[in-house]
Amino acid sequence: MNNQDKQLAQVMDLFTTLLDERRSQERLEPIAPAVPPEVLLDELSLELPVQGLSLDGVAARLRAVIEATPSTAPGRFYNQLFGGRETFAVLGDVLASALNNSMYTFKVAGPQVLLENELIERMGKLMGYQDHEGTFTPGGSLSNLCAMVVARDHAFPEFREQGMNGSKLRVYMSTHAHYSVPKAAAILGIGRANIVRIPVDKRGRMLAPALARAIDEDVEAGYLPLMVNATAGTTVLGAFDPIEQLADICESRNLWLHLDGAFGATLVFDERFQAEFAGSERVDSITWDAHKLMGVPLSCSVLLLRERGRLQASFDEVAGYLFQTEDDHWNPGTRSIQCGRRNDALKLWTNWLHHGTAGYRARTERMRDLALLAADCVREAPELTLVKEPESLTVCFTAEGAPAESLCEALQDAGLAMVGHATVEGESVVRLALVDPGTQKEQVRCFFEDVRDVMRSRAIA
Amino acid sequence: MNNQDKQLAQVMDLFTTLLDERRSQERLEPIAPAVPPEVLLDELSLELPVQGLSLDGVAARLRAVIEATPSTAPGRFYNQLFGGRETFAVLGDVLASALNNSMYTFKVAGPQVLLENELIERMGKLMGYQDHEGTFTPGGSLSNLCAMVVARDHAFPEFREQGMNGSKLRVYMSTHAHYSVPKAAAILGIGRANIVRIPVDKRGRMLAPALARAIDEDVEAGYLPLMVNATAGTTVLGAFDPIEQLADICESRNLWLHLDGAFGATLVFDERFQAEFAGSERVDSITWDAHKLMGVPLSCSVLLLRERGRLQASFDEVAGYLFQTEDDHWNPGTRSIQCGRRNDALKLWTNWLHHGTAGYRARTERMRDLALLAADCVREAPELTLVKEPESLTVCFTAEGAPAESLCEALQDAGLAMVGHATVEGESVVRLALVDPGTQKEQVRCFFEDVRDVMRSRAIA
Repeated sequence: MNNQDKQLAQVMDLFTTLLDERRSQERLEPIAPAVPPEVLLDELSLELPVQGLSLDGVAARLRAVIEATPSTAPGRFYNQLFGGRETFAVLGDVLASALNNSMYTFKVAGPQVLLENELIERMGKLMGYQDHEGTFTPGGSLSNLCAMVVARDHAFPEFREQGMNGSKLRVYMSTHAHYSVPKAAAILGIGRANIVRIPVDKRGRMLAPALARAIDEDVEAGYLPLMVNATAGTTVLGAFDPIEQLADICESRNLWLHLDGAFGATLVFDERFQAEFAGSERVDSITWDAHKLMGVPLSCSVLLLRERGRLQASFDEVAGYLFQTEDDHWNPGTRSIQCGRRNDALKLWTNWLHHGTAGYRARTERMRDLALLAADCVREAPELTLVKEPESLTVCFTAEGAPAESLCEALQDAGLAMVGHATVEGESVVRLALVDPGTQKEQVRCFFEDVRDVMRSRAIA
Repeated sequence: MNNQDKQLAQVMDLFTTLLDERRSQERLEPIAPAVPPEVLLDELSLELPVQGLSLDGVAARLRAVIEATPSTAPGRFYNQLFGGRETFAVLGDVLASALNNSMYTFKVAGPQVLLENELIERMGKLMGYQDHEGTFTPGGSLSNLCAMVVARDHAFPEFREQGMNGSKLRVYMSTHAHYSVPKAAAILGIGRANIVRIPVDKRGRMLAPALARAIDEDVEAGYLPLMVNATAGTTVLGAFDPIEQLADICESRNLWLHLDGAFGATLVFDERFQAEFAGSERVDSITWDAHKLMGVPLSCSVLLLRERGRLQASFDEVAGYLFQTEDDHWNPGTRSIQCGRRNDALKLWTNWLHHGTAGYRARTERMRDLALLAADCVREAPELTLVKEPESLTVCFTAEGAPAESLCEALQDAGLAMVGHATVEGESVVRLALVDPGTQKEQVRCFFEDVRDVMRSRAIA
């Protein structure tokens, strides 16, 4: 064994050891109490040394950092729209790190490009697309941004060369849509003030008649309506905008219809959501984050386009030093907002091999079942109030006499759960996200017992 | 050992096995012959199954894909501006996968945010910054794009809300700058036609007097000059634009000066490049890709800003469901173009602990020494011509009677090296990138022997 092999073997052992330790820690202390950043800075040795450290020295530093890193893995992390740790997904991701192919050309990435294509093909088919294209991006915000670029360049092809001409474009979304939409409008030169927020019904779904009215009034006033951003799974309520109705409006007015399914697209696997996805084959583009509900590590976002050629029309540039062999079809760099690009496809492909499509279906259904169970638990607890029936995987509730913020903090400080709060109709609520199908039903019930215990304790003002 | 532990242990064993096999393959066959995508598609089983596969089934599929995946690791990969495989960097990256913290808030990422800050702090200091800020982005293209957003919003703060008003902004770069600059101009609504390409001197460095003239003529003609994109390490020649001269021009005209050091910034560790970096503390923003020359897997790009507050002014949005604890200083999501964001910092931090700053210095110097050696090898070979003295780490040459394209293809097909070609002053040249300090001097000499062998063989038309 030469020195390099020896070092690699030692470091792989260290990886396994650190991961084992981490998992033991997670079992004993799933939610570590929050330590303020200033205190952590004092306690940890984060500074970069002049002289390199030994393997043991690196291990000691890593161990301390890992012990203080919040866990997103076990059954008590309900704070974000991702969570859990799936073994095969991690395997695919660590292989992507070790292989280190940049996903711009077939020359450098070979079959990694082909399996990425296979995923794009399959995911588009699940949405009802036939002859579509797609691109992996580093997150839903950038997928939504790319969709807006493509929509703009499609409607105003001269902008790409000449720049925007001062026309006031308009983009429509519901009041519950994600903040990445106005963020993209600011970045792209469209302007945040040109985002029109359409009201929602009691279930959090965009009101189609209000949308139609807003568009028509804007046209009257001289604005140029560009696109509608529908949401499949809003951030707080998990609601689905009515695709068919929005598609009717967009088709008759020649507007781009984008579906932000960053959170909810994966629910297409669950037949109970058939009605919510009706019309998905009519939308022009779809954002789908696999790192949210498909159990793969951050990040793994896919932007799907109903028609081929759109991405290249917006993102292709001449780069003779790079695109040298094979035609553009095999070089995804011609369709990407990035140049060098990490391989985010291998982890999803590996996890999909492990689960199979049938397994992904069952896995997705389990999440919905957990959300329904959580809603039942709220209903059964006299001191808790269900704010809405859960539209998909988030369950929003209030607790009598305990402000949501304080309750979330108390749960974390007591080492019981990490969960966040949000605002619904002006009221502060706890937003429980059931996005880890590894969570056991018993853990969900336990969460609500913990909530009631914490409420009874002195922890809550 | 429960079932989950058992599966994890098996899968980690599989990772080690596949990595060992890969490294054996790389030793025996560092450059596999190119197989066309259509053929690979036939040979590999890439389709996603309905029923999930067993561990052995997944292993078989992965093994086939990995064997067909081009290697970017060993000493014969000279094709891109990244390469090699550093053990500690991979360790940091696989830990980031397994931990899976999203880098938007301290609440969810804890000390991972603090070590990211430490890297930003240190990298800025190396550039001469004092009280700076920064953000990790998924690649140099997006770092350059973010810099252009910040420059625009700083000069025209009303655009963020109102959108661009039709003014013709202008962005200046040399004819050798990266394609991501016009690409960003297209995306941001500035327009590719508003990129002004400034000529370079014989060494590939932007001509400052030509820049000053172009800006002043644009002002005369009613354009609004916005920013100058200087390059530290151009893509083909590896040249450095003259920062001090460009800073004088930008300061006197109140223009944003961005330094695209995606490729070259790491050379700040090598004192031989002191003159090239003179004035770096005067530029407004800097792109620095650690995945290119700092030995970490894709991607790891940092955008540094000389003054604090710029990023938040462009990228912050209200998101009550997300930013809940700690003030904005500790929540990098308020300064990022992304929302959910992979941890790209841990791998760089881990590798830096291993090398130390002194080790990174020596490592960087080795790359330059390899490039100088390669230039000597070209000069010693009568049938090869050095196109330019290497400005940094790329060595461009031509071969008598062998077009660069054919030579590159023949080297790959013979399993000898993967290397790319480019155009310099209208001539097609081989661009050899010496960016893996793990390359042995003997391997560089061997590369040129291989080139001469291939030229003598019938492989070249």
